[in-house]
Amino acid sequence: MTVTLGHLNAGSGDNFVAAVGDIFEHAPWVAERAAAARPFATVAALHDAMMAVVRAAPRAEQLSFLRGHPELGGKVARAGAMTADSVAEQGGLGLDRLSDAEFARFERLNAAYGQKFGFPFIICVRRHTRDSILAAFERRAANDVDAEFAAAIAEIGYITRLRLCAKIDGPGKPVTDGWLSTHVLDTVAGKPAAGVRIELFEVGQSARSALAATTTNADGRTDAPLLSGGPLRSGTYELQFHVGAYFAATSAAAYPSYLDVVPIRFSIAEPEAHYHVPLIVSPWSYTTYRGG
Amino acid sequence: MTVTLGHLNAGSGDNFVAAVGDIFEHAPWVAERAAAARPFATVAALHDAMMAVVRAAPRAEQLSFLRGHPELGGKVARAGAMTADSVAEQGGLGLDRLSDAEFARFERLNAAYGQKFGFPFIICVRRHTRDSILAAFERRAANDVDAEFAAAIAEIGYITRLRLCAKIDGPGKPVTDGWLSTHVLDTVAGKPAAGVRIELFEVGQSARSALAATTTNADGRTDAPLLSGGPLRSGTYELQFHVGAYFAATSAAAYPSYLDVVPIRFSIAEPEAHYHVPLIVSPWSYTTYRGG
Amino acid sequence: MTVTLGHLNAGSGDNFVAAVGDIFEHAPWVAERAAAARPFATVAALHDAMMAVVRAAPRAEQLSFLRGHPELGGKVARAGAMTADSVAEQGGLGLDRLSDAEFARFERLNAAYGQKFGFPFIICVRRHTRDSILAAFERRAANDVDAEFAAAIAEIGYITRLRLCAKIDGPGKPVTDGWLSTHVLDTVAGKPAAGVRIELFEVGQSARSALAATTTNADGRTDAPLLSGGPLRSGTYELQFHVGAYFAATSAAAYPSYLDVVPIRFSIAEPEAHYHVPLIVSPWSYTTYRGG
Amino acid sequence: MTVTLGHLNAGSGDNFVAAVGDIFEHAPWVAERAAAARPFATVAALHDAMMAVVRAAPRAEQLSFLRGHPELGGKVARAGAMTADSVAEQGGLGLDRLSDAEFARFERLNAAYGQKFGFPFIICVRRHTRDSILAAFERRAANDVDAEFAAAIAEIGYITRLRLCAKIDGPGKPVTDGWLSTHVLDTVAGKPAAGVRIELFEVGQSARSALAATTTNADGRTDAPLLSGGPLRSGTYELQFHVGAYFAATSAAAYPSYLDVVPIRFSIAEPEAHYHVPLIVSPWSYTTYRGG
Repeated sequence: MTVTLGHLNAGSGDNFVAAVGDIFEHAPWVAERAAAARPFATVAALHDAMMAVVRAAPRAEQLSFLRGHPELGGKVARAGAMTADSVAEQGGLGLDRLSDAEFARFERLNAAYGQKFGFPFIICVRRHTRDSILAAFERRAANDVDAEFAAAIAEIGYITRLRLCAKIDGPGKPVTDGWLSTHVLDTVAGKPAAGVRIELFEVGQSARSALAATTTNADGRTDAPLLSGGPLRSGTYELQFHVGAYFAATSAAAYPSYLDVVPIRFSIAEPEAHYHVPLIVSPWSYTTYRGG
Repeated sequence: MTVTLGHLNAGSGDNFVAAVGDIFEHAPWVAERAAAARPFATVAALHDAMMAVVRAAPRAEQLSFLRGHPELGGKVARAGAMTADSVAEQGGLGLDRLSDAEFARFERLNAAYGQKFGFPFIICVRRHTRDSILAAFERRAANDVDAEFAAAIAEIGYITRLRLCAKIDGPGKPVTDGWLSTHVLDTVAGKPAAGVRIELFEVGQSARSALAATTTNADGRTDAPLLSGGPLRSGTYELQFHVGAYFAATSAAAYPSYLDVVPIRFSIAEPEAHYHVPLIVSPWSYTTYRGG
Repeated sequence: MTVTLGHLNAGSGDNFVAAVGDIFEHAPWVAERAAAARPFATVAALHDAMMAVVRAAPRAEQLSFLRGHPELGGKVARAGAMTADSVAEQGGLGLDRLSDAEFARFERLNAAYGQKFGFPFIICVRRHTRDSILAAFERRAANDVDAEFAAAIAEIGYITRLRLCAKIDGPGKPVTDGWLSTHVLDTVAGKPAAGVRIELFEVGQSARSALAATTTNADGRTDAPLLSGGPLRSGTYELQFHVGAYFAATSAAAYPSYLDVVPIRFSIAEPEAHYHVPLIVSPWSYTTYRGG
Repeated sequence: MTVTLGHLNAGSGDNFVAAVGDIFEHAPWVAERAAAARPFATVAALHDAMMAVVRAAPRAEQLSFLRGHPELGGKVARAGAMTADSVAEQGGLGLDRLSDAEFARFERLNAAYGQKFGFPFIICVRRHTRDSILAAFERRAANDVDAEFAAAIAEIGYITRLRLCAKIDGPGKPVTDGWLSTHVLDTVAGKPAAGVRIELFEVGQSARSALAATTTNADGRTDAPLLSGGPLRSGTYELQFHVGAYFAATSAAAYPSYLDVVPIRFSIAEPEAHYHVPLIVSPWSYTTYRGG
């Protein structure tokens, strides 16, 4: 399915448009105009060139392009007229399964936004949780038209960068993945804490969702990152470390101990970054910090 | 309402029994026999003397005394035949307002316990949460009869010590109060964090209850202890420190920050102790420990 | 020896001048003019009034007053013509026992300073270590004349405030004392660390001086503050906590352990403040912070 | 210079002895007898086989072998009769440049030890500082003869393992290297602290020696380990982190700040281990722990 950058550079303009013409929603003209700038040394350079085409387009064409995007969680999503990429991106967040109340809230925000700006609210949903989308929606609705126009284009940059990286193989891919890791150190024994059960939750305004459950290995780390394989979703998370059971198993500590399940709640705001959340812990104390 | 120890020491035996005869449930004989040991130098000595009477009583009399205690959360509670002290103590925990499922669980535990030991499960409820009562119930149900007999007498010591301290004024009162305090230090500014909102919850197996909400003063402490005025209830608690809002207000930190609400979950196991739970915090890190 | 504020307020002007006329170096006129403002509600108000007299004096009189102060560590100190107060203040720091090299350095600084400003360098030595005096000397030598004139008057405020507080009893004394305290918490046991040997050093550019040695009590604190009884001296200090011996005595920790003597080096910059320097420690980790 | 394990396995017995006959001090018989056990799958297996020869030798032969080792820091060292390996190993620690007082102390210990055990004190000096050698000397002098005989053989194991690894290349080399690393995290900025000057000292009983000075890179780490390339030397060390200058350069912190140079003093007891000594620091607080 993936195409190589070399293939794109070497082929005809038609082949190029056939391969990447659908990266920008209903806008093959972006690929058509970018084709002339070939060859591209890196995947990032290809994406930059396509974004430059968007930014250089006349305002009317840009507006028409923005208008070609589906409403977020709106009628179109329910009626099934979105591109396959949009369906996959929005579905990952459950925007196609909103409750009636949530649907109504999005409808109201969509309506007010459309009336003010004349195009639908565009956001790279794969970098967001429902809560952070809602927060961004409300924050951006207060923008003036020029600022919001730029914000929408910037989001299209995030969206198409992910689509392009999924489709094209080659050197110089832009960084689109973030990851979350942890490390548990036992300050009684002075060594990594092995066998500590860890659970990860997304903490939403209305509910928390379990995202992962694992156990520390001999290095006090987890065999795989807690989150990885794409951008992290901006939002609030909570790690829960079952240190009471660990200390009960490894030492003479009374159980239930002063510390049993240690929750660490933190927010992710940089989807492409590494978040390292260590726990330095005894049965009576702990330290955590954003590491890296 | 309160009586002085001096008055008890100086008065007649009848007066003494009239004053403290109801401290031990349906057992005025405890006071009658302890009267001879007057005068008592301290309230603690009076209580010790009464407990010595209980421990010196023949087994049959002890058993009859234990049997005079109401079932915990049981039929008697619903039917209204408890002493006023028992009603107040059990009601504080909501044992008179159990759901049908909880009521059924207590009934089953009570029945099995009664069948094994021949007396009702006795526990000083004012030192416990519902969860810790249930844990103690299940743990003690596994005791042999002698160990459990001793455990029941020990609980009567806790119960009557509280009743006596509430009724008698005088020197040398035993320590029956615990307290919970906190302290928030801002490691960016190197000084106490003033104006941090703090909430305290009891974290039960099935639900969490809000117990207190307050704000740190200029010393980074709370004007009053978070819990005080009696024994602490054994159980699991969570403090939530609203440090995101604090740092947003006091510095140029981005908001929402990496840390917004910092939860610290801990267990209390010593009802008469001081639990000091400090938070040493920056927008990106924190340390906590059991202080004192 | 001390005089009460009430006595000063009630007595004659001559009595007043007799009592406090020597607070300002060779300048009884300060007391003479301040006498008219009696009565003073507080000792602080008395000092404020005397400083107001200094600040209101004609520049020539101020300059003459500044010139009446001894050179710091200079010829006068060696020759013995200082007031008794100045001798005591400078002697506490060892300025009368300078090495030849230090003496030469002070001489050079004094000479350059005197040539630039026309009066000797004045500093409240009781708020300083030798190192911080030298640093202040070099920093202030770069001032323009007006700024340095104000700095010299401010230092006279510190000097005379201490002299006045030593001589006059009464309500509303200004705060002139700082203090240094510590607290050692054992995170393995979850309680204060008792019996930890602590040493305090002043860490100078050229040498370190032992200031105190003590042992933590049952609360993990020291029975008396590590420093107190006057202003703290600005400078760099090091606390050394003998935690290796503590953990060897209280637990099964191997000895010599990873941590043996834990040094905490910190600077004091506010002589009238409370510096609390806690140590939260296990055999393998520790946290410290400026508390309060 | 190095020989491959394959070459040793394939060659004649004479070649084998020529290559590794000098690994054990003045004892080519160790290699002679181990030759029969060829081929060896790993370098570790070769060393194990040679140690098995030593352990299987008759006591008289073992004793003679032990007696073939030079006195530590003794007459022989001064007189120049040691093997080249011994000279290099002892010289690294400065045992050939002892002061007269130190020389006398070693002489006394050597004499008492020799009289008690009948062979010289043997220790793998490359795993030790002068202080830890002295401590081991005094501790081992209290052993009974059998325990000390075993201790001496164990030290020969450490010595010859290093010699063998330096000479033989091949699969399965035993781990003989330890390393020391650090990591500085800035809790004000929530990111690695770049550009922090770090100095490393060995803290001896009588003096401290500077071992390394470096600066943290963009990851808050050092480009190379602070110590590496061989066993770590058991002993006490101090890292000094110049955080005052770092915070003065990166933020609006007052300078000199509360923390300027942060010393972390720790002991190394496992020469082949990784010691990771992170510093989590703000201008007013820090945490450290043995990481890994």
